[in-house]
Amino acid sequence: MVDIPKEIKTWQMVTPYGKNGKTGEILTGKIEKTTIPVPDLKEGEVLVEIAGCGVCHTDLGFFYDSVPTVNKPPLTLGHEISGKVVSGDSKWVGKEVIIPAAMPCWNCALCKTGRGNRCLAQKMPGNSMGIYGGFSSHIPVPSTDLCEVKERGKTPLSCLAVIADAAVTPYQAAKRANLQPGDNVIVIGCTGGVGQYQLQEVKALGAKTVIGIDINSERLQKSLNYGADFIINSMGKSPKEVTGEFKDICRSTGLVSYGWKIFEVSGSKPGQEIGLSLLGFTGKLIIVGFNTAKVEYSISRLMAFDAEIIGTWGSFPGYYPIVMDMALSGRINIDNFVETRPMSSIVETFDEIHHTGSPEKRIVLIPDF
Amino acid sequence: MVDIPKEIKTWQMVTPYGKNGKTGEILTGKIEKTTIPVPDLKEGEVLVEIAGCGVCHTDLGFFYDSVPTVNKPPLTLGHEISGKVVSGDSKWVGKEVIIPAAMPCWNCALCKTGRGNRCLAQKMPGNSMGIYGGFSSHIPVPSTDLCEVKERGKTPLSCLAVIADAAVTPYQAAKRANLQPGDNVIVIGCTGGVGQYQLQEVKALGAKTVIGIDINSERLQKSLNYGADFIINSMGKSPKEVTGEFKDICRSTGLVSYGWKIFEVSGSKPGQEIGLSLLGFTGKLIIVGFNTAKVEYSISRLMAFDAEIIGTWGSFPGYYPIVMDMALSGRINIDNFVETRPMSSIVETFDEIHHTGSPEKRIVLIPDF
Repeated sequence: MVDIPKEIKTWQMVTPYGKNGKTGEILTGKIEKTTIPVPDLKEGEVLVEIAGCGVCHTDLGFFYDSVPTVNKPPLTLGHEISGKVVSGDSKWVGKEVIIPAAMPCWNCALCKTGRGNRCLAQKMPGNSMGIYGGFSSHIPVPSTDLCEVKERGKTPLSCLAVIADAAVTPYQAAKRANLQPGDNVIVIGCTGGVGQYQLQEVKALGAKTVIGIDINSERLQKSLNYGADFIINSMGKSPKEVTGEFKDICRSTGLVSYGWKIFEVSGSKPGQEIGLSLLGFTGKLIIVGFNTAKVEYSISRLMAFDAEIIGTWGSFPGYYPIVMDMALSGRINIDNFVETRPMSSIVETFDEIHHTGSPEKRIVLIPDF
Repeated sequence: MVDIPKEIKTWQMVTPYGKNGKTGEILTGKIEKTTIPVPDLKEGEVLVEIAGCGVCHTDLGFFYDSVPTVNKPPLTLGHEISGKVVSGDSKWVGKEVIIPAAMPCWNCALCKTGRGNRCLAQKMPGNSMGIYGGFSSHIPVPSTDLCEVKERGKTPLSCLAVIADAAVTPYQAAKRANLQPGDNVIVIGCTGGVGQYQLQEVKALGAKTVIGIDINSERLQKSLNYGADFIINSMGKSPKEVTGEFKDICRSTGLVSYGWKIFEVSGSKPGQEIGLSLLGFTGKLIIVGFNTAKVEYSISRLMAFDAEIIGTWGSFPGYYPIVMDMALSGRINIDNFVETRPMSSIVETFDEIHHTGSPEKRIVLIPDF
């Protein structure tokens, strides 16, 4: 039984925050409830009734920090989406799905040479899929890359929204790092929205020793239950001091200090500087988080160390079923890292995260139009 | 017929250049001719009568620039060595060989996990093999990693000394870059002692388009005969200007501007800055050259680009026969890039290279004691 709507109800970003170029006056952004037509579905497209949509820092960047969306406002934000197919391609209708945060074109040279995660024509809900985004009752999307949800037990469909982006990005990062059972791993920013999955997934994939680094003692303590064998609180410490603590852990446990795979997920300049300081012989530093700051580094050290710095962008849609299985089989925990709220709290929720920073749990908004 | 000597004649670095810590006075370095005893060969060791030893910038760093050798002076420098086995393990005696510039211990965790090129206990003639180095009549070395020279035709054995280090380092770099037929490649510093082999080898390994970048017009012009399809003279240009010329080449030839593998061989800060500027979507920057300068870079760009910076150190001894075959079969040219001189010119030769910079041809010193 499916329910085909006459129109899509949505929380549309009418205008993002901005600044008057002449006066410097802050121009307040506006997100408001509205309705948009249900479009005619093209061949291969489906209409998904949204169960939940996660709030990501990327959304806040679009709204507050002048990061431009590919499609100009007004448009609806939101790209961590789960839901149920209600219309379109008949073999999908009635199925529960996770919508990939980015869908490659599968038609360009990058896609055709196995780099589709970095397809330059990729489509992202809430950014480059016309006016459509996840903070809505429904969304039209291509069916090609949908991840079918099966046997989800007691896990609410809404919670599985976090698989998109938050939980698959770390999996792609682990693949880029060629993570192997027995590897020693450091996760910088291990208690953040993406970092907590990075921590859990490297452990689930067989990492031997995992060190979590972050700046919140309470959350760091909890991370010992979710993948971390050791923790370092880097608050107020120099990269050299953090590296000293790392070496102390190596000494006390008899672990070698070379060959570590270091995931920098904090996306902060101090986090990146810690990562560079920790990088040693045959090590890999994987850049998962983003910021616009420059860092100073002698890249010749990479030569002397036979070491690497690897950037990782997005995720292949094909990894979604794998990460979903990890979650549904309990190899990684998502239930304890998700908080659901009614979608009508979107303005307050955005405002709260914008002011208080990374929440301990990913907030998933559930349509309550 | 082999000739076992009673003693080894050698040009020993008695003291490197230095500076009086108090007065700042420059302390002149000293290389002088002397003799040292032939040691008792241990199990698995051989004595090699040296045919030639290449002069590498690493030697000059040890002598002029306060780069410390692992074994303290007095010792003999020189690690690009070819010669003939005259004593020791009977299955080697009489054979012509190239001695690897660095020999892994094959006994540590790095060696046992396939990273022997970066073995921390590796032995290097002219640095960490006791007092022994290549600027000598003979040298005792382990036979384990020797590269046997076969069917060298008219190529003098002395010239094959450059296989060690100068010609295998680029091969290791190409392996680290996972170079594939059809790849598009840029070589920065393509006319230097290592760069000219980097250029030739990427082409020999099947690179589609190769762009050579350096600062000497005449040598750049020649490099069009040795692997380069296009050249850019970067003298006096900003990284942005060089990148502009690169994009012009892409536009005029219909090549994509992403996915290029960029080998930074110059070991200069400007070269590294050009490399970072050229690095684009899904690209790889391979750091082959060394200097101690820091560069400024937003490493988050690696994330946005899904790109990598890869350091590469030394070479596996197992690659020596492959590179030697490339040279002897004419797939790369070494004859036109080697100049031989009598070893008695060592002091003048060091001085000349130190003052005039990278010579067009690698200078190989031939024992004339």
